[in-house]
Amino acid sequence: MPSLPLKTLKIPTQRRCQMIDLTLQIRGLLSDVKGQDGMVIVYVPHTTAGITINENADPDVQSDWLEKLGQLIPHREVYYRHGEGNSDSHLKASLVGSSVTVLLERGQLILGRWQGIYFCEFDGPRQRDLLVKLTTF
Amino acid sequence: MPSLPLKTLKIPTQRRCQMIDLTLQIRGLLSDVKGQDGMVIVYVPHTTAGITINENADPDVQSDWLEKLGQLIPHREVYYRHGEGNSDSHLKASLVGSSVTVLLERGQLILGRWQGIYFCEFDGPRQRDLLVKLTTF
Amino acid sequence: MPSLPLKTLKIPTQRRCQMIDLTLQIRGLLSDVKGQDGMVIVYVPHTTAGITINENADPDVQSDWLEKLGQLIPHREVYYRHGEGNSDSHLKASLVGSSVTVLLERGQLILGRWQGIYFCEFDGPRQRDLLVKLTTF
Repeated sequence: MPSLPLKTLKIPTQRRCQMIDLTLQIRGLLSDVKGQDGMVIVYVPHTTAGITINENADPDVQSDWLEKLGQLIPHREVYYRHGEGNSDSHLKASLVGSSVTVLLERGQLILGRWQGIYFCEFDGPRQRDLLVKLTTF
Repeated sequence: MPSLPLKTLKIPTQRRCQMIDLTLQIRGLLSDVKGQDGMVIVYVPHTTAGITINENADPDVQSDWLEKLGQLIPHREVYYRHGEGNSDSHLKASLVGSSVTVLLERGQLILGRWQGIYFCEFDGPRQRDLLVKLTTF
Repeated sequence: MPSLPLKTLKIPTQRRCQMIDLTLQIRGLLSDVKGQDGMVIVYVPHTTAGITINENADPDVQSDWLEKLGQLIPHREVYYRHGEGNSDSHLKASLVGSSVTVLLERGQLILGRWQGIYFCEFDGPRQRDLLVKLTTF
């Protein structure tokens, strides 16, 4: 299985909690795949951010998603002991997950009609990295 | 790494929220693997459904799972703005996840003794698709 | 794509809910990779435990993580019907997830500076298994 060199996307985030649609940027890395089948592994090398696949049509989906998740796991709890004040961000990162795997068929991302790939910032704003590995079968 | 053509399972769901055990159907797709090692990537191309691996013995596990998740993320919140009324479904889909990877050894799914692969409907009933990609190493 | 034989780590857990850093043990399995690129799939064959990638510097992160998750999904709910009393463990396992995929570059795990790989016990203490599959591209 040949693989292409690991690529890094630089992602500046603007708010403490934010979903950023990276589908187009990831699609822009596919030119080397040249019509083959394979997969893309998208990996977040941070512990207070995650990655998910969700709806890319109505922005209210993302704001509702962030608000409900923030209500479940609020920024502050009286019992948090971690001194950086971002214990909520670490739990959110684990529940959302640190990577997604998306299939490639004939060089194209196989996403459902309404699916986009979202970087999930839970402790911004920061400069973040996202690792993208393409492999053909 | 040779891969087999992408397969699609058609899944009719019956309720708004439901877990459906697909282990046997996925196992039924393995005949082409012919005793080799590899992996299966099971992918949900929807934004209001997910996939998970969980217990396949006592059905009370699934009903407790669905009830507790629904209590954490109820159907309605006064602050939801998304007009389709399924903001809960989108968050559940992200937390449960849109794909699972299961190893194949000598052509068999490597699952723990009590593990089954469950499609998780969070906004049904609907006709759903599930994508299954087999790859041998 | 050549793959190496599936390996099993034996993990004794000491508490009902516990995060155990396995990064060093997983790194110890990489000698056969011999400087190649690839990936490692780490898989939990249990339905009341999970695996996640999170911070490995301050132990307060793990205790806050476990306490908040336990507050969201407590051990007991009056409506749980599953007789074993571990319905909470099954839901936690699904939300955290049963596997992680980590990239290998020149034989090394590609983890962010603060990232470690944690086995998450949600119904211990028990003797657990963790499956580790290395594949080079």
